[in-house]
Formats: sequence, structure tokens, C-alpha cells
Amino acid sequence: MSINFDKAATTRLKEEVLNEMLPYLNEFYANASSIYSPAQKSKEKIESSRMKISSALGCKPSEIYFTSGGTESDNWAIKGIADSLREKGNHIITSKIEHHAILNSAYFLEERGYRVTYLNVDIDGFISLKELEDSICDETILISTMLANNEIGTIEPIEEIGKIAKEKNVIYHVDAVQALGNLPIDLKNLDVDLMSFSGHKINGPAGVGVLYIKDKTKITPLLHGGAQEKSKRAGTENVAGIIGMGKAVELAVENINGKIDYISKMRNKLIENLLSIDGVTLNGSLENRLPGNVNVSIEGVDSQEMLIFLDRKDICASSGSACNTGSIKPSHVLKALGLSDELAKDCLRLTLDSENTLEEVEEVSKEIKKIIKILRK
Amino acid sequence: MSINFDKAATTRLKEEVLNEMLPYLNEFYANASSIYSPAQKSKEKIESSRMKISSALGCKPSEIYFTSGGTESDNWAIKGIADSLREKGNHIITSKIEHHAILNSAYFLEERGYRVTYLNVDIDGFISLKELEDSICDETILISTMLANNEIGTIEPIEEIGKIAKEKNVIYHVDAVQALGNLPIDLKNLDVDLMSFSGHKINGPAGVGVLYIKDKTKITPLLHGGAQEKSKRAGTENVAGIIGMGKAVELAVENINGKIDYISKMRNKLIENLLSIDGVTLNGSLENRLPGNVNVSIEGVDSQEMLIFLDRKDICASSGSACNTGSIKPSHVLKALGLSDELAKDCLRLTLDSENTLEEVEEVSKEIKKIIKILRK
Repeated sequence: MSINFDKAATTRLKEEVLNEMLPYLNEFYANASSIYSPAQKSKEKIESSRMKISSALGCKPSEIYFTSGGTESDNWAIKGIADSLREKGNHIITSKIEHHAILNSAYFLEERGYRVTYLNVDIDGFISLKELEDSICDETILISTMLANNEIGTIEPIEEIGKIAKEKNVIYHVDAVQALGNLPIDLKNLDVDLMSFSGHKINGPAGVGVLYIKDKTKITPLLHGGAQEKSKRAGTENVAGIIGMGKAVELAVENINGKIDYISKMRNKLIENLLSIDGVTLNGSLENRLPGNVNVSIEGVDSQEMLIFLDRKDICASSGSACNTGSIKPSHVLKALGLSDELAKDCLRLTLDSENTLEEVEEVSKEIKKIIKILRK
Repeated sequence: MSINFDKAATTRLKEEVLNEMLPYLNEFYANASSIYSPAQKSKEKIESSRMKISSALGCKPSEIYFTSGGTESDNWAIKGIADSLREKGNHIITSKIEHHAILNSAYFLEERGYRVTYLNVDIDGFISLKELEDSICDETILISTMLANNEIGTIEPIEEIGKIAKEKNVIYHVDAVQALGNLPIDLKNLDVDLMSFSGHKINGPAGVGVLYIKDKTKITPLLHGGAQEKSKRAGTENVAGIIGMGKAVELAVENINGKIDYISKMRNKLIENLLSIDGVTLNGSLENRLPGNVNVSIEGVDSQEMLIFLDRKDICASSGSACNTGSIKPSHVLKALGLSDELAKDCLRLTLDSENTLEEVEEVSKEIKKIIKILRK
């Protein structure tokens, strides 16, 4: 890829991460659950990865559960809590701008007898704490919100939401898939009961994720079977993937403030360049925004055409979530902000990480200007 | 590992498989769902893997769905069919010797209003077709049995079971996790609606599996979210894992009769050697048995002690499923055969694949004889 401005879709597996994984894709292949000595090595590596992750996130190793990715973590959190608390109540609160791993799980639960409130967001994508508080009732068993939105980068006030949840004695799940490595996360200072993470979003491997589950939180397993992960998540451990996840999380939080600083500067320059073009507007908040996220609507320029033109110049970008490519419906996130169908379809998402450069920002800005001229003709 | 006689627990990732995966763990990391050219390469590789697998199994590519492993495939099959047919009926039939991915899913469904019949097995581990037929009623929506048992290697009559299921208009799921690569499987000649497979059992990567779902079979997703896998199994595709799965399946069915021949000879020699020792009995059928499976009970020799002594000689073996290591309960499979608690706890499972040799068989037999002498003193 010549210029990759679609880092929210996925990231490059770092060489350091791959190098830690390789021996366990190769020489050391014992099933971590077996009794003999070679299996102990696999088991120790899994526990060392769990330690790295808990230490990076400010929680206990016993609170880290390995999954097959962000989607499984989200599904498990929502469905697992809904099931385990079904005798306490049937009401769940989430927002209109969640990832489809949350929304489609919530729609499924609605069809199975649960009641779900989908909170509105304002023009910048923030939920209202007042609306949240008003929505909580005796039957409310779960609140689930993102830490940062994958399309528009808006950072939700999870500290305040957590306080409300705790006060009302409601379990709080946070989807932090898009936030880890882009924002500092310190679980010991948050009133959060569950948090989802994904490997491939943080320069780690695909097919592995984490669900943080605060000690003493009762949750029904999503995958029943063997006794792995303290009988909470069955399935032979993906040892290499788990090792990769541990290393990726360790690297993701390393010098996070320096990275945020570097990436924000590129993002601000890119926003400045794009907003200088007629008929270009920023979607999402300028203040509480992921450092690497830019999402604009370009009047009269259909996103699919823009992406094809950018691709011809070897520039990778997107119109929103990769998980919904091919969908002809305008983004549910942009619609929730109040955008017209037209402006929602004219969107362009550019997402950066620390491997991008200011030179790339300038080149992409220049190309976008040219393409807008062509497409508006 | 000096001698690995625990190939039913997991297998070595083949170098040819790893070599096909590596470029996609490295250079080509695009999200397969993205719109730009680099993503097409990932997408094509996924479809090519799907083709390889469908061609190896005798089904259509559209019937192959990638999952995170055998446990997810089993959970999805059982819970997904139970949910999608909940208005037709609530009765499920399985057997007492299934893997815990099936049994624990079934127990869960029982707690949620389903009724489950657990078929008995005879002394060799075979279910009775008569008992199966008698168990089917108007509410029966699903039959689930293994193709081959992971502990005792017994091969169930899935052709006949499939015919009964089809005649009675009941969905039939087969857990073939332990069978693939050890037995020929030809889906076009079987009345099977769903079949589960796992990567790491066939010299492929851990963390990836397959669920075969016959066209037109309605199944509720287990993982809701993005539009991947025709909106049936959400989650960013584990491209490298999927490539590895495709290559592993291709290699697993290559020269399968030659492999069965080679492995059976070693197995027969091992059984002969072990049965020549006083107080050693074979568990499971001698005839319809996985080529690489040996499971014996050794009177007066606790399996945990045997395994520790074998480990000191760098020999890897097990007492049953790796998924239940640490459990103090005797194997549910051996108990279902009618074994006493004592004989069930005195079991030893030795499982071979084509990387093992006759020399290893002789050495392991010799060591086991010595250890039995020591432990019986």
C-alpha cells in the first residue's frame, strides 16, 4: 500500500509482535491444556500475555479473558450479561452510534424478549448524560457504550457514564476496540465492568481479542465447552495469537502521549487542509476526538467514487466501517448526527496511526482536492 | 518434544501451511472487507481457501463458513439451529460421549427451556440406531453426533444416522473435529446439514475452524455484527488463519488412504504391545476406530502418575481430552461405556499421526511396560 489512511479498519502486524509469535507457530505447538512439560511453556506464555495486558490496562490478570476478536468480545459482553441477569430485569441501554457488533446483538436480544433503549447523540456524536439517567429504570441490567466511535472518532464521557451506572447498580460495558492505543485507558480509575478490545486494531494479529471482566461479575459464557479461561470461554487456546495480543497491547500503550501528540498534529493539518475546500464539513467533534480520525462530508462527491479515485493513486481510505462495506445504506452513525442522506453518502473517513507522516497528509490532501474538482464537474 | 503421542490434542503447524500464511501476517494486512485494491488480495485469498476446503469435502464453497475453531463451530451449530427452529420444536438429540463443546452447550439449552436426549452407547462407544429412532418425536429439531470420538476413536455410523434424520425431517449436525484428515469425508454422499472442523487438529493454525452449513439451512448467527461471511458470522476475517486452514485441509485429505494405512499399522502394533501386558484392556472398538487412536485401561496404574512418568522420558500422552485436564472426574466417555470409576481413572490415550514412526511405537511400548512395573509395586 502506497499510503494507508485507513488504520481504523486494520493495522499492520508489527515485526516485533510477529517475532514473538513465530516460535509458537512453529517449534512450540503443544496444547496449553495438556499435562506434560512442553505444554507448560505454552501455558506460561498465555499467562505472561495476560499479565502484560492487565498491567497495561490497570486491572488484575484474572480479569483478562482471551476471545477471537472485538466482535466476539462485544457479543459475549451483551448477550452474556443479558442472560446472566435475565431474572433481575430485561432492559438494556446503548446508543445509536455503536458498532454493529453491539447493535445487531441488541436487535437480536429485542427479538428474544429484551427491551433496548438506543440513546440519541448530539450533532458531534455525544450521548446525553441526562437522557441516560432518565432511561434507567428498575429493569435496567446493562449499559453499553463505546469509548470512541470508529467512524467519527468522538470520545464518549465513559467516566461520567460509569459513575451513573455504579450509582444505579447497573453493569457497564465499554467497547474500546477503536480506542486502545489511541487513548490512555486506566481501568482502576473507571467504573467499568466489562471492556472489549481487538488485536488487529493495535498492530497485533487478527482473530484474537480480549474481554475485560471485572472480578465477581457474573456472565454466561458465549462459547461453552472445555475448561479453558476458567471455564468462561471454551476452545483450545490460540497460543501464538494470545502472545501477539500481549505484545501488541504492551507496545500500544508505550509512549502513548508522544504518539497522541504526533498523530494529532497530522490529523489537525489534514482537517485544516480539507476544511479549506468549499463544501467540505467535519463530522464529529473537533475537541474530544480520536487523535487519528478525520471524517468529512464533501458536498456533491459520492464516497464510493472518491474511494475509487483515491485507490487509483494507491491511497487507502474508507467511507466508514469496513465491516459494512457494500452496504448501500448511509452510515447509521452519520444519520444519528442528523446528517441528510446526501451528506451521509458524501462522507470520507481518513484514519492515521504513528506509521503515517506529514508528507503523506500533504499528498493525500492534494489528491483529494484534485479528485473533488474532477468529480464535481 | 521427544515423542509426541498426543496428536488428538493438537498437531504441529506444517511448514508449508505457515509459509502460505506468512505473507498475510506481514506484508499484506488489508482488511478483506475494505474497498481498495490491496483488500481485494485478502478477499481473493479467503475465497480461494473456501474453494480448497469445499473441494476437499465435496460441498459448495457457499456452504463453508469460517469460525474461530471447533468449539465455536459446535456452539454455533447447536445454539444457532436451536434458536432458528424454536418455533418448530424444542427437542434435541445427542449422545453421552460428545465433546464438551456439544454437551455443555446442550446443558445450557436445557436450562433455557429445551429438552435434550443423551443417547447411550454400547461397550465400544456406538450409539444405537434403534434408540435414536425411538427418541425422535414431533418436537425434535436437531440431532448432533460425532463422526469419531476424541477419546476412544470410535467411528459412529453417520451415514445411517443421516438417513434417519433426513427421513424424519430433522436437521443433523456432525462434529468432525477429530475425524478430518484421519478419515475420508465426502459431504455430497452424506445426509448431513452441518459439520464442524478445527484447524489445529489437522496441522493447521489454532484459532480458526470451519462450520459447513448446507445451502438453505436456516441458522441464527452466534456472532452478530458486520456483514462478513454473508452476514452469518461477523468479525474481521483472520486472513492468515483462513489461508492456513485452506492449505491444512488440502494437505489433510491428500493421499488419505496411504496415511490411514501407515498410521493404522502403527496403532495396531501399539495395541498389540499394550494388550500383551497383564491387566491392560482396550477401550473402544477395534474395528471402527480412528487410525491413530489407542485408549487403554491399565489396572492399578493411575493415569496421572503414568503421564508424569512418561513426561520424564519426554513422551507426551494424555488421559483423554486436553480440554478437561485438571478435572478430577473420570472421563464421561469411559463412564458411558460402562467402565468402573477405577478403570476409567486408569486410562491412557495415545494418539498418532503420520509424523510418528514404528520405532517410536516400540520405544513407548517399552517405557510403558517399565512404568507399569514401577507403579504396580
